[in-house]
Formats: sequence, C-alpha cells, structure tokens
Amino acid sequence: MTIAPGKVLKIAVLGASGRLGRLIMAEIMRRPDMELVAGVVRHDSVMLGADLGELAETSLAGIETSVSMRDAADAADLVIDVSAPQASAAFARQITERGGPPFVCGVTGLGADDMAALEAAAQSVPVLYARNFSLGAAVMRWLTAEAARLMPAEQFDLEIVETHHRRKVDAPSGTALAIGEAAAQARGLELGTQAIFDRPRQGAARPVGAIGFSAIRGGGAIGEHSALFLGAFEELEVRHRANDRFIFARGAIEAGKWLTGQKPGFYGIEDVLGLN
Amino acid sequence: MTIAPGKVLKIAVLGASGRLGRLIMAEIMRRPDMELVAGVVRHDSVMLGADLGELAETSLAGIETSVSMRDAADAADLVIDVSAPQASAAFARQITERGGPPFVCGVTGLGADDMAALEAAAQSVPVLYARNFSLGAAVMRWLTAEAARLMPAEQFDLEIVETHHRRKVDAPSGTALAIGEAAAQARGLELGTQAIFDRPRQGAARPVGAIGFSAIRGGGAIGEHSALFLGAFEELEVRHRANDRFIFARGAIEAGKWLTGQKPGFYGIEDVLGLN
Amino acid sequence: MTIAPGKVLKIAVLGASGRLGRLIMAEIMRRPDMELVAGVVRHDSVMLGADLGELAETSLAGIETSVSMRDAADAADLVIDVSAPQASAAFARQITERGGPPFVCGVTGLGADDMAALEAAAQSVPVLYARNFSLGAAVMRWLTAEAARLMPAEQFDLEIVETHHRRKVDAPSGTALAIGEAAAQARGLELGTQAIFDRPRQGAARPVGAIGFSAIRGGGAIGEHSALFLGAFEELEVRHRANDRFIFARGAIEAGKWLTGQKPGFYGIEDVLGLN
Amino acid sequence: MTIAPGKVLKIAVLGASGRLGRLIMAEIMRRPDMELVAGVVRHDSVMLGADLGELAETSLAGIETSVSMRDAADAADLVIDVSAPQASAAFARQITERGGPPFVCGVTGLGADDMAALEAAAQSVPVLYARNFSLGAAVMRWLTAEAARLMPAEQFDLEIVETHHRRKVDAPSGTALAIGEAAAQARGLELGTQAIFDRPRQGAARPVGAIGFSAIRGGGAIGEHSALFLGAFEELEVRHRANDRFIFARGAIEAGKWLTGQKPGFYGIEDVLGLN
Repeated sequence: MTIAPGKVLKIAVLGASGRLGRLIMAEIMRRPDMELVAGVVRHDSVMLGADLGELAETSLAGIETSVSMRDAADAADLVIDVSAPQASAAFARQITERGGPPFVCGVTGLGADDMAALEAAAQSVPVLYARNFSLGAAVMRWLTAEAARLMPAEQFDLEIVETHHRRKVDAPSGTALAIGEAAAQARGLELGTQAIFDRPRQGAARPVGAIGFSAIRGGGAIGEHSALFLGAFEELEVRHRANDRFIFARGAIEAGKWLTGQKPGFYGIEDVLGLN
Repeated sequence: MTIAPGKVLKIAVLGASGRLGRLIMAEIMRRPDMELVAGVVRHDSVMLGADLGELAETSLAGIETSVSMRDAADAADLVIDVSAPQASAAFARQITERGGPPFVCGVTGLGADDMAALEAAAQSVPVLYARNFSLGAAVMRWLTAEAARLMPAEQFDLEIVETHHRRKVDAPSGTALAIGEAAAQARGLELGTQAIFDRPRQGAARPVGAIGFSAIRGGGAIGEHSALFLGAFEELEVRHRANDRFIFARGAIEAGKWLTGQKPGFYGIEDVLGLN
Repeated sequence: MTIAPGKVLKIAVLGASGRLGRLIMAEIMRRPDMELVAGVVRHDSVMLGADLGELAETSLAGIETSVSMRDAADAADLVIDVSAPQASAAFARQITERGGPPFVCGVTGLGADDMAALEAAAQSVPVLYARNFSLGAAVMRWLTAEAARLMPAEQFDLEIVETHHRRKVDAPSGTALAIGEAAAQARGLELGTQAIFDRPRQGAARPVGAIGFSAIRGGGAIGEHSALFLGAFEELEVRHRANDRFIFARGAIEAGKWLTGQKPGFYGIEDVLGLN
Repeated sequence: MTIAPGKVLKIAVLGASGRLGRLIMAEIMRRPDMELVAGVVRHDSVMLGADLGELAETSLAGIETSVSMRDAADAADLVIDVSAPQASAAFARQITERGGPPFVCGVTGLGADDMAALEAAAQSVPVLYARNFSLGAAVMRWLTAEAARLMPAEQFDLEIVETHHRRKVDAPSGTALAIGEAAAQARGLELGTQAIFDRPRQGAARPVGAIGFSAIRGGGAIGEHSALFLGAFEELEVRHRANDRFIFARGAIEAGKWLTGQKPGFYGIEDVLGLN
C-alpha cells in the first residue's frame, strides 16, 4: 500500500502514555501530512480515557486513549508501536490475520518468541523493527561496521563507549550492543565470544578481535555512543550524540512513512537509509 | 608487473634525506620481503654520499645516496617519491618514456602541470598519488564522504577541525581540504563555493551546505582530523588521530606493494582499500 | 540586606520578553522561596500588557508586563536584568540614587560608559555582572586560568575552541573571550596582543604565549567551550558543554539569591563560587 | 641539602633496566646540569654489567650497571627509584640510617609496610613519592579535585574514564584511582565506598556521590585520563593525554631537582607544583 501524494497518512500509536509515544503523537499532530487517529494504552493505565492532546502536551485532539488494538488497526494506514513486548507480539499476530496495516515497532526487550511473531507478520505485511530510530545513530552504526571491515582486527582494537543519564539501569545500552553486533559481523566474528563487558582489576592482555564495552552513567545525557578503533600508531573514532529525544519520534515517523510504500517484508532503519 | 610470491621487492626512494623518506627507508630495511636499492637526494644536498643506513638511523646499508633518478629506476621494481614537485614531475616523464617501474608519489604542493605529468605517466605505468598515506586517514575521509551522502546538508551542518603541531605553517591542512572535497562531492556540491575558512567577529547565520574549517595549532601533535555533522537535535563525528609518523611510512610501502600488482592507471589510497 | 530564613524573595525581571527572561520567570514561579513581582519590557514591545505567566509558558501569573523600572525596583528585593545595554545603564543610575535593591545584570555588549554606570552603582548597592550565568562555565573558566598558571606558556600552547548553533552570528563567543582573558591574566599576558582569531593559509610558526581561537558553528548546539593546553609530549583539556538554556536561568537566580546577602560591591560569578 | 647554582647534580637510578629507568638515564646523560653516576639492577638481571649508555640507547657512559644500592647512594646527590616495591623499602631503610641522599620513588604496587618505610625515611631525608611523574597528569588531578569541590555531588555525577594500550593488564589505572581519591576527598567522601568499577547488565539508578570508573584498552595509547562531571543540563570534562613516555622521565628528574632543595619530609608532585 502506497499513500498517494497529497493524501493524509492516518497513524495509530501503541504505547500512547510512554515518553516516546507522547513525543510521536505531538509530532504527528504538528504535521499537515499526517493525522493521529488512535492512541492505545494498557487496560489498567491511569491515562485510559485521557485526551491524546493532553498526553502529547499540545492542544486537545478530541480523541481519547483506548485499549483496543483492533480498532486502532482498523482506523489507521500505519501503526507505530512503542508499548511493551507482549503487546507487540499480540499485535503482530493480529496484523498477520488481517493483512495490515504496515507496522513500525520500536519496543526493546523482545524475547525470541515475540520477535518470531514480528517476523511471521512480515510475511504478509511491511514490518519495520528498530531499537533506536535516530537517523544519526543508524548512520553511526553503519559507519562503524564499514570501519570494522576496512581496519583489520589484528591492527585495530575496537572499544565501544556509551554515556547515558543517571537513571538508566541497564548497561551497556541496547544501541551499544547493536553497534557491537554490526562491527563483529563486518569482521566475520561473533559478538557473543568477543564482547568484554568488565575488565578485572588484574587480568590479561587484550585478545585480538575483542570488542570492549564501557558504560558511563550520569547527569541528564540522552545518549552518546562512540566506537574507538585503536591502533599501535593511530586511532579512529565514530561518535553519535542525541541531544533531544525528539529525534527518536521523528525517526519513527519518517520510518513509518517510508514503510507505507514498501512490499511485505522485515525491515530496519538501514533499509530506510538505502544501506542494504 | 606482479612480484612473485617470495620474491624480494626492490625499492628506490626519492627524497631520501627528508623526514618521511628516512622513515620509509628504515622500514624497508627492517622487512625481509623488501630491499632498499637506492636513495636519491638533490644535487646540492649536504647528505649527498651519506650511507642510506645513516639517514635511516639503522645499521649501515652499504649504499650511498645518489642524484640519478634514472639509475634508481633501473635498479628498482618500485619507486616511492617523497621529494618535491619538480622532481616528481621530472621523474613521471622519465617513467613515461621507459614504461616503468610502478611509481608511488606522496609529494604535496604539486601544480597543475606536475599533476598532468603524473597522469600522463599513468597511461602506461601504475601510478599512485596520495597526500596522506595513513590507512586510518583514508578510511576517515571515506567514512566522512559516506556520512555526508547519508545525512542531508539541509539537516546536518559539516565542520572540519584539524590539530597539528606548533611548527605547521599552513592552514587548514591538505588532509582537511581533501576531506572537505570528498564530503562536498558526496553532496553534489563544490568545496570552492562552500568552504568557510575564517569566521568574522560579526557575520551572518551559517548558510545551508557550507563546510567550515578550523585549524588548531600547538604542541607536538602529529595530526588529528575531525568531521562534525551538527544537526538540530543530534550530532555525529568521525575523527582520526595519527600518533606516530611511522604510519605514513608504512602506508606508503603497503600502497607500493599493492601497486606492483596493478595494471597501468592512476590510483589513490581508496583503491588500495578497495573503496572505489 | 539579607533575606531572613523562610522569607520569600521578591524578584523583578528586566527583559521579560526575551528567551532568557522567560526562563528566569518560569523558574521563579516554580520555586516556593521566591515570588515574581514584576516583568519589564520596552515601551514598544508587542508583549506589553501580556501576563507574565503567558511569557513564561506557565500558568497565569495575574501580573502584566510593564514599562516602569522604577515600580519594579519599588516592589522587589532583587532585580535581575537580561534586557539591553541602555536599559541596564539607566537602571544602574536609578539604584545608585535610591540605594537598592541588589542588582544582577547579565546583559552582553555593554559599552565602557554602561559598565561605568554599573560600577558606580556598586559603590552603594550589591551589583553582580556576568556574561554567562552557568555554574559549570564559571568553574571551567577558573580551572582554565589555574591550568594556565601552572603550565608554562613556553611548554604548553593554549587554544580555545567553541561550538555554537548555526544561527549565532558573532565569533568567537563572549564566553570564549572571557576564558582567554582569564588565562592570559593568569600567565601575566595581555589577551589583546596574544589572541589569534584567524590562521592564514600560509603563515608562520606559532608564537610562544599565543592564544588561538576557533569557532565552530552548526546545528542546535547551545554552547560548548574547550581550552586545550598542547605540549610537546602531552596535552590537557578543560571542556564545558551546556545542554539546556535552563542552566543560565538557574544560575542567574542562584547568583541573585547569594547577592541579597552581600555588602555593596561589584561581584562576579567567581564570588558566588567563593573563588576570589 | 641544596645543590649550588652551577653545580652538576649527581644522580643514581634504581631500576636501570626497566623502560622508565632507561628513559630517565638517557635524559640525565643529555643534560649538562646533571651527571649519571650509577644504575642499579637486580642480582639476577641479564643486564648486570652492561654499560648504562647501552641501556639508555645513547653513547657509552663508561659505567656498568651494578647491584649495590649502598654504593649508588654514596656516589649520588639524588637517587631516583623506579625499581620494585621490595627494593624501594630496603633502600628507604638505608637512607634512614645514613641520613640521605634525597630520594624520589616512582614504584607502584607498594604495600602498607613498604610505604611505612618511605614515610619513616622522610623523618630525616627529603622523600618524594609519585605514581605518575607527568606534570600534566598532576595538574589534571588537582583540577579535578577543585572541580569536585566546586560542583556538588548532588548536582554533578563524576565518572573517570581512562584509556591505555592493549598490553596493560590492570584496570583501572593507578592514576585513575589517584584521581578518584583526590576527587572523593575534595567532596568529603571515601573512594572505597563510592567507587563503581563494573556496571551490571541490569542494575539500579546511579547513587548520588558515586564515582564510576571505565577502562578502555587498545592499540598503543600511552595513557589518557578523563574526569567527567555530568549534570542534568550541563557537563564539564578535565582530560589529560600522555603522548610520549618521555614526560614521565622528565617529570621524575624535575621532581628530583626540586627535592634536593627541600627539608626532610614526605612530598608529592603537588608540592613541586606549589599546590599544597
């Protein structure tokens, strides 16, 4: 399904009460080429029944949050999901049955079963999955993989350093792991066997091919990721920094807009950028 | 001409008394797969007649510096030139006549005529020209161009910042300009019209598409180059730092070794890396 | 005059319609220990008569913007001025006459006469002047001056690099110049004779004691300042980055709160931090 | 004991066969105001009997390495010790008995007993102990402590990041720990209870006052240390990078020269810089 030029794209958001969901709704409401048609929350959410504009901190939308993913799918040309793993998997099964609409999922922490449900949906519906919707972060990951391919592991040690705000409780970030996976793959290595997460107080010299991770936590940093290629006599760094969560909202919407013009399949941000 | 496996590669160096020439000779003398057969200096050099090992600060080589580029070409499977523009152009004409040997030139400040002489030689001989032989710097330039292509000028302002030691008198560095050229080309722009070298005390807002240059000078820094893509809400940096001039020597030698296996043509470091 | 513990501090803001003025008013309205009593704008401001809460993007304040600095001074225990040079000088003369209230001024671009008016007021009223109210920026400037004192100019070249958003039209920033002044003073040098703002395409080696400035412009960066001490074999950097303009508002308010407990005199942020 | 102006300072080096010992000897031999009078190695060293100039990679010194710390102390105005903990403690006891000469110790990994021996010697002899002799590193540590004092732990989270070459087996570096100790002390905290060395894959939000450490390993990096003060809306960094081990040799010698003019006591690099 391609949205005809000039046609307004109707979008439903799953996870309407979360921080990213609110930003996505605000941006959709701001844009003339899009229309927000539904915002879904959990059955037990205190936000159930609230006006979507209230959540988005814009003017009133005249639409209340609801609990029916089915109604949301009926009303929308595109669904953007920033809810939680179980909901994502359940919704993936619904669109598999009904053959649409295109589905952008940005939920982290999906288990193998949840992911399998998304991949099954992608047999008949365009599905895009991403852990980080920022354009710059996607470019950074791709550049890092290219550098890993061009700069041999024997000569250049790779270290990935990320910085996030003081309330982030997982380490390293999902984005850092995704960068490490892309780099390991570009070198024909497995991240699982190469990753070093903690350096012991007294250890051994660094193995060739290892990928070290460092997690810095503090202040209000939204997210910075750096890939360091450290050679004997030179070094190369690829670094990305997010200064506002808005980039994740905009990235999700741009990815969704792109997705509505695609054939069924399982896509990532790289596809939006034409990198695959 | 391809050097057979196991065969020792005979190399002559033009510009044997310069800093980079000495490093190149030292590395050639250290390696078992190579042999230093000549080191050429200017007619009026105080180093004329010195042993090449003395210049390279290694053990004696048993070969004195000489002035004949012709004899050097006769003795060598490969010539590496880090001399000066006039000598480079003259030598390019010699190898055009005699049909070899493969020629690596790393001389900066070549005029249009000098460059034309190299390109003419490349009709019949493999010629490789580079302003910076570091592997990392070449990767950095290529990554920057890729980022410039993927991240639109309307959204991401590009600034190139370089740091060099306190004695460097030109600004910005040739490498910084080469990075800027590669990025401008990737965006379909001309560096000549986009480059901003100095920011006035009171000026105007930054034009879309502009490429700003900053030159930092101080201490003993061998060379650092950074490309900053600055967006409204995110930023991406690609940065390379040389910690030892040895990388330029090794890079020139690796490029030369690669060149001996190629057909006539005009090559750059990107070709060695397989980027074109 | 010291505000008694528990007493609410009444504050008037000059320059109520500007970006920083609005942020200051919003923060005052948010805090239980303070009360916003007046917001002054220019006679010809389109915001004349608007509710202060509207400007601050908070709930309605029940107070309209006004044009009388005199009434504002009557109502307030403290005046924070983020207006424009002429208004600052005029207000400084008023408080000189009436002997108060304490006056925080953060207006840039003051001429010598304007500054003289502030200094005259400081004979009888506590006056604090700052070009940048961020705590971190003040600490950064002081650390840079200490480093300049401890690391001799003969061994460590100082370069100051600043990054600001694409719309900033002056270069280098006032804060960068203030850092340079502090560092030059710590080394017993004059910034006027040491500053290098532009590096020519072909110049001379870097003079000992010079202070180089680089201005990077692009994207939405609120403000980053870096002082680099570059030695032959080592380097030291002091860097500050503002991620939200709110720090300037909070800094101005904290400085004002501190000022109400001081004797008449001319103060800076360093005094608030106890650095002088 | 003060060395009279113009008098040549006679120096003995303990640990003459180690990397830093060799650099120190080379620098002493290069300087006209100093004389290398002894180089001590272990009884079982393969370097026993070698000429000191051979170890220092300079011209021959005409002095062989020896094993007698006693003879070295007899011949010298100053002893610089970069050997190993046991030797340091033994030598400290010797100079306690004989009342000199001044003693610079740069050995890491000293136990409590070893350190007690140094402190006992300092009752009657000038003794200087440092884990890192670089001037810049000392300034960096002091600036970090000042920043920690000025920027409250409640507002600014401190993270210390260090980068070293791929062969370094301990983490974090001794210098990083010393920076952390200085910062904790400046905030009235104990590093022992505040340090976070590893971040779990799933943990808790960052405690106020915590000091996080990250160790990056790779390539040939000699040593970089960064202190990050991360606030909700701003950040400050103090960073030092060593580009050549020579700075440690020069720093040890400069510290020793300063020490010969001091009264008995236990000193650190801060004293050389006048920071205490």
